[in-house]
Amino acid sequence: MTLKTIGILSPGDMGAAIGAMLHRHGVDVITCLAGRSDLTRLRAAEAGLRDAGTMDGVVQEADLILSVLVPAEAVAVAEQLADSISRTGARPVVADCNAVAPATAARIAAAITRTGAAFIDAGIIGPPPQPGRTATRIYCSAPDCTPLLDLNAFGLDVRPVGAAIGQASGLKMVYAASTKGTTELLIATRAMGLDEALLAEFAQSRSDVAARLTRDIPGMPRRARRWVGEMEEIAATFDALGLTPRMLLGAADLYRFVGETVLAEQTSREPDPPLDAMLDTLAGRLTPAPIRTAT
Amino acid sequence: MTLKTIGILSPGDMGAAIGAMLHRHGVDVITCLAGRSDLTRLRAAEAGLRDAGTMDGVVQEADLILSVLVPAEAVAVAEQLADSISRTGARPVVADCNAVAPATAARIAAAITRTGAAFIDAGIIGPPPQPGRTATRIYCSAPDCTPLLDLNAFGLDVRPVGAAIGQASGLKMVYAASTKGTTELLIATRAMGLDEALLAEFAQSRSDVAARLTRDIPGMPRRARRWVGEMEEIAATFDALGLTPRMLLGAADLYRFVGETVLAEQTSREPDPPLDAMLDTLAGRLTPAPIRTAT
Repeated sequence: MTLKTIGILSPGDMGAAIGAMLHRHGVDVITCLAGRSDLTRLRAAEAGLRDAGTMDGVVQEADLILSVLVPAEAVAVAEQLADSISRTGARPVVADCNAVAPATAARIAAAITRTGAAFIDAGIIGPPPQPGRTATRIYCSAPDCTPLLDLNAFGLDVRPVGAAIGQASGLKMVYAASTKGTTELLIATRAMGLDEALLAEFAQSRSDVAARLTRDIPGMPRRARRWVGEMEEIAATFDALGLTPRMLLGAADLYRFVGETVLAEQTSREPDPPLDAMLDTLAGRLTPAPIRTAT
Repeated sequence: MTLKTIGILSPGDMGAAIGAMLHRHGVDVITCLAGRSDLTRLRAAEAGLRDAGTMDGVVQEADLILSVLVPAEAVAVAEQLADSISRTGARPVVADCNAVAPATAARIAAAITRTGAAFIDAGIIGPPPQPGRTATRIYCSAPDCTPLLDLNAFGLDVRPVGAAIGQASGLKMVYAASTKGTTELLIATRAMGLDEALLAEFAQSRSDVAARLTRDIPGMPRRARRWVGEMEEIAATFDALGLTPRMLLGAADLYRFVGETVLAEQTSREPDPPLDAMLDTLAGRLTPAPIRTAT
């Protein structure tokens, strides 16, 4: 199979960046913009994505379709894709690149392969790809990963991890479990008047944590609503293995709490708020606690 | 007040190491060994600790008493201490150095100060102190921290963080929240046949995490039972502030799971098991899951 046209659903921060990279390498990249926001249309135009008009249009034109969505939408969009494939009789290969549990990936695979189309499980680790930066890896697992591995010729870094559906998703889940959820302690520290002491202790004993906290947290609120679903998928991954899901359900609680604040209205187009202002907003929403005190 | 005699309850790994450091600097260090194990008696003897025979003996002889226990024992031992102080009419200063929530520290403070004795809240960050290693810090908060700060003359690193009971405990809680709970993802990875892929990804994108996982995890099982209570105290800390307690309750679940295995029977006197064998034991106890698969 020669890849000529690739469909991307949908062109969010990650999907548009992947599409732009493919487009820059001469690939015809299509998407479906019906009912999408002005920001999404702008991003798609900047990335050089062509609007195929409808889901049926994407399915009929694309050799390979990448599903890059918020986790909560992954199953519903896969079912729409499957309907569209059945209706049109088209046979694109479908790669699910969403941050979902292996069991969710298996459900998605069942919906797609039922139509006769081939399916590849995938998981993306790293930020949206940019020219000259090699920080994004797309892991994949399937009986045949070839169509997705072919994207290595177009500026992407795609790596196989196994033959079973669920392995690439599983890798994304355990990796994501290690990078999320540290915000809570900084909010708690602010609420107890202990910021300075904690940052001084971190600087001495765990400078990596201090650097990560101050670097990563300001960009977190605008991603918080998306991460609620991702944490729930990681929780489901652990639960299916017989490990406790509560750590990740707690991380989902935390992102839900942050997602309810005005900070979550930011877009990636605006500069992130300063850490200090962000902590004031979040700590200010906590319930008063008797042990909170000023020195 | 001149510190001549210091009481330590009880001489576990941390308590005995603190006692040994004080003893090495000429302090008369006492404890109570009634009903304790042979290992505890050996550790106390090696540290140069003198057995005062009973709790009443410790209370009557000591100018300052350090409570260094597993979190689950902190309140009960504080109540025994308070009874002993009331019964004997002695007036030692009591410093609670346990990993407990600020609200638990407040309960302990109430029990002690009710007797007329002075109380200092403290939290220990770092490994048990050793000669020539400056990796252990004892943070403290109280209206008057002087008696504990005086220990800076005897090889310890004691630092004030505020005037309010609960602040030193709060700092310990948020710090500990950042260092625990990453084991789960490595167990899950082993169960899904993804070890190699995860460690390769970490080595590339987050070498600090890879180094910490492989370094810290083998020593975790022998501490797991103690950490169950510590996680529950951190959960209570977050809960009192209006933040979700579930992340830390999940960490408690995880350590409970590890604590039920034979790995938890290890002592700090024996070499830690290799990471590989440990993961085999833990992953082997998981319930079979349909998405687990070999490549």
